[in-house]
Amino acid sequence: MGFDPAEAARWDRDGGFPVHVVKQLADRDWLGGSPLELGEFCAEVGAVCSSLRGLVTVQGMVSAALSRWGTADQREHWLPRLAAGEEIAGFAATESGAGTDLAAVGTTIDAGPGGLTINGEKRWVTCGRIATVLLVLGVLDGKPATVLVETDRAGVCLEPVHDQLGMRAAHIADVRFDQVRVPRENLVAPAGFGLSHVVATALDHGRFTVAWGCVGMAEACLRDAAEHAMIRVQAGVPLADHQLVRSMVARAAVAADNARLSCTAAAQSRMDCSPDAIARTIMAKYTASRAAATVSADAVQILGSAGVAPDSRAGRFYRDAKVMRIIEGADQVAELHIADHVLREHRRRT
Amino acid sequence: MGFDPAEAARWDRDGGFPVHVVKQLADRDWLGGSPLELGEFCAEVGAVCSSLRGLVTVQGMVSAALSRWGTADQREHWLPRLAAGEEIAGFAATESGAGTDLAAVGTTIDAGPGGLTINGEKRWVTCGRIATVLLVLGVLDGKPATVLVETDRAGVCLEPVHDQLGMRAAHIADVRFDQVRVPRENLVAPAGFGLSHVVATALDHGRFTVAWGCVGMAEACLRDAAEHAMIRVQAGVPLADHQLVRSMVARAAVAADNARLSCTAAAQSRMDCSPDAIARTIMAKYTASRAAATVSADAVQILGSAGVAPDSRAGRFYRDAKVMRIIEGADQVAELHIADHVLREHRRRT
Amino acid sequence: MGFDPAEAARWDRDGGFPVHVVKQLADRDWLGGSPLELGEFCAEVGAVCSSLRGLVTVQGMVSAALSRWGTADQREHWLPRLAAGEEIAGFAATESGAGTDLAAVGTTIDAGPGGLTINGEKRWVTCGRIATVLLVLGVLDGKPATVLVETDRAGVCLEPVHDQLGMRAAHIADVRFDQVRVPRENLVAPAGFGLSHVVATALDHGRFTVAWGCVGMAEACLRDAAEHAMIRVQAGVPLADHQLVRSMVARAAVAADNARLSCTAAAQSRMDCSPDAIARTIMAKYTASRAAATVSADAVQILGSAGVAPDSRAGRFYRDAKVMRIIEGADQVAELHIADHVLREHRRRT
Amino acid sequence: MGFDPAEAARWDRDGGFPVHVVKQLADRDWLGGSPLELGEFCAEVGAVCSSLRGLVTVQGMVSAALSRWGTADQREHWLPRLAAGEEIAGFAATESGAGTDLAAVGTTIDAGPGGLTINGEKRWVTCGRIATVLLVLGVLDGKPATVLVETDRAGVCLEPVHDQLGMRAAHIADVRFDQVRVPRENLVAPAGFGLSHVVATALDHGRFTVAWGCVGMAEACLRDAAEHAMIRVQAGVPLADHQLVRSMVARAAVAADNARLSCTAAAQSRMDCSPDAIARTIMAKYTASRAAATVSADAVQILGSAGVAPDSRAGRFYRDAKVMRIIEGADQVAELHIADHVLREHRRRT
Repeated sequence: MGFDPAEAARWDRDGGFPVHVVKQLADRDWLGGSPLELGEFCAEVGAVCSSLRGLVTVQGMVSAALSRWGTADQREHWLPRLAAGEEIAGFAATESGAGTDLAAVGTTIDAGPGGLTINGEKRWVTCGRIATVLLVLGVLDGKPATVLVETDRAGVCLEPVHDQLGMRAAHIADVRFDQVRVPRENLVAPAGFGLSHVVATALDHGRFTVAWGCVGMAEACLRDAAEHAMIRVQAGVPLADHQLVRSMVARAAVAADNARLSCTAAAQSRMDCSPDAIARTIMAKYTASRAAATVSADAVQILGSAGVAPDSRAGRFYRDAKVMRIIEGADQVAELHIADHVLREHRRRT
Repeated sequence: MGFDPAEAARWDRDGGFPVHVVKQLADRDWLGGSPLELGEFCAEVGAVCSSLRGLVTVQGMVSAALSRWGTADQREHWLPRLAAGEEIAGFAATESGAGTDLAAVGTTIDAGPGGLTINGEKRWVTCGRIATVLLVLGVLDGKPATVLVETDRAGVCLEPVHDQLGMRAAHIADVRFDQVRVPRENLVAPAGFGLSHVVATALDHGRFTVAWGCVGMAEACLRDAAEHAMIRVQAGVPLADHQLVRSMVARAAVAADNARLSCTAAAQSRMDCSPDAIARTIMAKYTASRAAATVSADAVQILGSAGVAPDSRAGRFYRDAKVMRIIEGADQVAELHIADHVLREHRRRT
Repeated sequence: MGFDPAEAARWDRDGGFPVHVVKQLADRDWLGGSPLELGEFCAEVGAVCSSLRGLVTVQGMVSAALSRWGTADQREHWLPRLAAGEEIAGFAATESGAGTDLAAVGTTIDAGPGGLTINGEKRWVTCGRIATVLLVLGVLDGKPATVLVETDRAGVCLEPVHDQLGMRAAHIADVRFDQVRVPRENLVAPAGFGLSHVVATALDHGRFTVAWGCVGMAEACLRDAAEHAMIRVQAGVPLADHQLVRSMVARAAVAADNARLSCTAAAQSRMDCSPDAIARTIMAKYTASRAAATVSADAVQILGSAGVAPDSRAGRFYRDAKVMRIIEGADQVAELHIADHVLREHRRRT
Repeated sequence: MGFDPAEAARWDRDGGFPVHVVKQLADRDWLGGSPLELGEFCAEVGAVCSSLRGLVTVQGMVSAALSRWGTADQREHWLPRLAAGEEIAGFAATESGAGTDLAAVGTTIDAGPGGLTINGEKRWVTCGRIATVLLVLGVLDGKPATVLVETDRAGVCLEPVHDQLGMRAAHIADVRFDQVRVPRENLVAPAGFGLSHVVATALDHGRFTVAWGCVGMAEACLRDAAEHAMIRVQAGVPLADHQLVRSMVARAAVAADNARLSCTAAAQSRMDCSPDAIARTIMAKYTASRAAATVSADAVQILGSAGVAPDSRAGRFYRDAKVMRIIEGADQVAELHIADHVLREHRRRT
C-alpha cells in the first residue's frame, strides 16, 4: 500500500498515522469503485490499521453525503479534492450530550446577512486533528442542518484526544466552534434534511466501511493466531495440536467467514439498489464488529503473552474492535433497527 | 407440498410420518436439480418437519454414494427407483460402540462362494422402519466396505426407536443383520473404499442437506416468534414493543441470515466443484445447526407457554435442533475439521 | 426416596408420576426444615424428576402463602394436611391472555349472600389433574384476590395437557371454573392483597424451589456426562481424554457450582430474613435455570446418541430446563427485576 | 488507601505506579490476615488498579512460597521485610519458550564451590523494574529449582516492557541473568522441588489473589455502569430506562455476584484446609477473570464514548481483564485442570 504495515503498531503508540499516507491511499482510487471493491479495500486497510480505515470511512462518508445531497458547486469543488486526498474530511455530529441520540444536538447554525454563524462543541471527530474540512451537524431555524466548515476558519478550536481505548492513531479531536462564520453556500441540503438525509447517508456509508474494516481485522487476527499455533511448541507439540486451540481457530474462522459473507451480501444489495440495503448494511456491521471482537479476543488468547505484548496486532485489534461495537450505531441500537426491519418485513408478507 | 404442514406436529407425536408423503416429495424432483435447488428444497421441507427432511437427506446420501461409486448396474437399477420414491433408502453406518468413530466398525461382511454374508448391528438408522434398501458399512477382508442390503432379506431384524429427543417422526430403527445373504454384486466399490470414499460421499451430502434443513428450521422459528411478538399483548403493549423481545428477534434474524449465507456459499462451492467444497459444507452445517438451536431456543422463549405447548413448532424444533448438532459430525468434530482446513490453507499460502 | 429414580423416565413417557409417591415425599418432611434443607431436598428430587419437584414446589407455594396470609382457621385446616400429603395443592394464576402479566386476570370472584362464585379459565396448572385444592387468583370487587377452591366442587372442569416440551409427568391441566361456589371463608387475605401479597409470597417460594431443583438437574447431568466420558472409548481413548470433552465437563462443573453457590446464598438470605432475600432468590433462579439449560445441553452433546436416546436423563432435563427458564418469571423478566434491585441499591448507597 | 484512586488512570498512562504506595499498602497488613481478609483486600485494590493488585499478588506469592518451603533463616530474613514493604519481590518463572509450560525452563543454576551461578532470561516479570529480590525458577542438576536473587547482584539486567495490552502500571520487565552469583543459602527447597512445590504454592496463591482482584474489577465496572445509566439521558429518558441497558446491568450484576461467591467459597476451602482448595481456587480464578472480562465489556458498552475515553476505569479494566484470562493459567489450562478434578472426584465417589 506504499507503506509498511508493520508501522501501524508505532502509529498506534504515537497516537497518529503520518499524513503522507493519505496520498498513498488516494492513489488506490479509494473512493471510486463498486461497493464490493470499496469493501475489499476497507478490509485490506482494516487488516493493517483501524485508524487508517477510519480515515477512509470518514472521507467516504462526507463524499457520499455531498455526492447525494450536495449542490452541483459543492460536488464539483469537493469531490475531486477529497478523492485525490488533497482535502481531508471530518464528520462532526456527536456531541457530549448526544452520542447515539443525534436528535439532541446543541450546536447552532445561525443565518445572518453575511452568511452562517456556527457555535457548539463536537466530540470524537475522527481525523479531527488533520481534517481540512468538517461536515457539521447543527440546528438552523429549529431544524437539523448540515454545513461544511473549513478548519482554517477563525473560531475552529481543536482539542486532541489521546490514549483512548482504541483507534489511537485516528487523529481524533474534540472540536469547538466559536462564532465561526461560513458562507451560506456551505449549507449541505436545506435545513430539515440534515439528520434524516445527509447524516443518514453518511452513517450508512460509515457502517458499510466499518463492517468491511472489521472483516479485515478478524481475518488478520485469524492469520496471526494460525501462524502462532503452528509455530509455537508447548508441552512438546505445536499449539495447533491441542484440541482447545484448534477449537478456537475453528470458531474464529467461522466468525470471520460469517462476517465476510454478511458484508458481501450487503455490498450486493447496495449494487442492486435493494430496498433492504440499509438493513443489510446494519446486519453486516453488527455481524462483522462482533466477529472482530470475538476473533481478536480468541487470537490474543491463543497468542498468550505474544498477544498481550506491546506491538501485537491482535492486542491492538482487541482494543479497536470494542470501539467498532459502539461507533456508527452500537450493538444495541443495531438490534433494535434489525428487529424493526424484520417485523416490518414480516407484517408486509402476511 | 401435497400435505398439510400442520400435520407435522401429529407425526412427531405419533412417531412417524405417513409413507404416502414420500411419493409427494418425489413428485418434486427431490434428488435432481443443482445444489442450490436441493438446498432450498431441504430448507422448505426442514421448515415443516425435520424427520421428513431426514428422509430427503438419507435418500440423497445413498443416491449420491451410488451415483459416484456404484457400478453401472447399481446406478441403473437404484437411482431411478430412489428418485421416484419407489424405493426408500436407509444408511446404516453407526454402531453402538462407534458413533462419530466410524473406523471402529464391528459389522462383518464375509465373502463366500454363494455371495456375501452380513452379521452385525446398526444403531439409529433414519427411516430404518420404512426403508426397502440399506447401505451398510462393514468390514470385508479386514477393510471397510459398503454393501446394499434389501430389507426383505432373511435375517434383517428391526427394532424401532421411539420417544427419542428429536426427529421423532423419522422412523428410526436399530437394525440387526443375522447371517444376511446378498449377492456379490451388492458390494458398492471395492473393499477398502467403503469408509474413505462411499461413506465420505454420503456424509458430505448428508451434512449439506442437514445444514439447509436447519436454515428452514431457523427461519420458521423466526417467523413464528415474530408473528407472536406482534400479536401477543403484554402489560398493555405488544410483546414486540419490549426491547428485550426485539433484541431476541434481531439476534435470531442475524443467526438465521448467517446460516443461509453460509449454506449458499457451500452450495456455490459445490456448483464450482471447488476443492473447498467439503470444508465449506462442514462450516455451513456447523453454522446452521447452531443457528437452528439458538433461534429455536429464543423462539420458545418469546412464545413462552405457547412455545412449550404440545403442538408448538418452535418447541419441536428446539428438540430437533439439538439432534442436528450431533448427527453427521457433532459440533466438536466439525471444529476440528474446520481447524485442520484453516491451518492447512494457511500453511499452503505461507 | 421410596421409589426407584429410574422410573422417572417412564413417568415422563406416560405423562404423570404415580400419586402414591406423594406420600413417600411427605414422609421426608418435605415442607418443614430450614430454607437450606428445603433447597437440598428440592435438589435431590430435581435430580430425579422435574415434575415431582414441581409437586414439591406447588405444595410449598400454597403452604407458604397460607402460612403467611391465611386465617388461623385456614392454617389450622390446610397446613397439616398439605404437609402430610393428604391434600395436593395446585396454584391457578396463569391465564391464556396473561402469562408473566398476572395483572391482566380475567377470572372473576363474585361475592353473594351464599358465598363466592368463581368463573374463569386457568392455564398450565401444575398437578392440576391430581390436586384436591387450588389456590386461585381472580378479581373480587375490582381488586386482585385469592381463593381456595376444592377441586371436587361442582363446576371445576379439568383439561389435561399432554406432550408439552418439558415437565411431562407434572399432571399439568388447564382448569375451567364454571359458576363454582365456595364459602366466603375460602378467601385468602382481603381483596386487593391477592397479587401483591399472596401470589407474591407463593412465587417467591416457587422461584426458590425451582432454582434448587435446577441445581439438582445440573449436577445430575454433570454426573451422567462424566460417567459416560470416562467409560466410552472413541478413537482408541476414553472420551474424557479429548480436550474438547474435558472443556465441556469443566464448563458444566463451573456452571453447576455457580448455581449451587447462588442458591446457597439465597437460602442464607432467607434464613437471615434479609431485605435482599427476594432479589437474591431471583438471581439464584436466573443463574440456576440457565445452568440447568447449558449443562444439560452439554451433557447431551457429550453423551451423543445416548443423550438423544429415549430414556436419557440428560435429554429429559434438556427439555425440562427450557421450561425452567420460562416459569415463575422468564429470564427476561428476571433481568429487569435484578437490574431494578441493583440500580436501587446503587442509588441508596450514593 | 493513602492515595487517590483517581490516580490509577495516570499510572496506567505513565506506565508505573509510584513506589511510595508500596509502603501505604504495607501499612494495611497486606500479607497477614485470613484468606477471606486477603481476598477482600485484593478486591479493594483490584477495584482501583490491577497493577497495584499485581504487586500485592507477587509479594504474597513469594511470601507464601518462602513461608511454606523456605529455610528458617530465609523466613526470618525475608518475611518481615516483605510484609513491611521494605523489600519488593518479583516472581521470575516465565520464559520466552515457556509460558504455561513451565517444565520447559532454560534458565540454569550451576552449583560451584563459591555458590550458585545463574544464567537465563525471564519474561513478563511483574514489578520486575522495582523488585529488590526475585524468586527465580531454573534447572539445577537437571532438576527444577528455585533460588532467591537480589536484583542488585552483578549480572541482573532489566528490560522494561511498555505499552502492553493491560496491567500497564505493573513495572513489568524482562530480566536477564548473566553469570549471576548468589550464595548456596539462596536456594529455596532442594532441587527437584522447585516446580512441583515452590512454584505450585506461589501460583496457587497468585490465582487466589488474581481471582479476588477480578471481583473488585467487576464490581467497580458495575458501579460505574449503573451510575452512568442512571445519570445519562438518551432519547429523553435515562439510559437505565432502556430494557437493553437494564439487561446488561443485570447480567453484569449476576456475573459479578457469581464471581464473588466462587471466590468466597475458595477462601473458605483454604481456611478449612480442604483438599479441594487448589481446585476451588482454580474455579474461582476462572469464574472471576471471565466475569471481569464480560462485565468490563458490558460496562464500556453502556458507558459508550465515556467508556472508550482516555481515563475510563471500565476501558482500562477491559484491557486488564483480558490479561487476567491468560496469566497464572489461561482459561484453557484452567478448564483442563477443573475437568481433571471433576473426573477424579467422580471416580472416587463411584
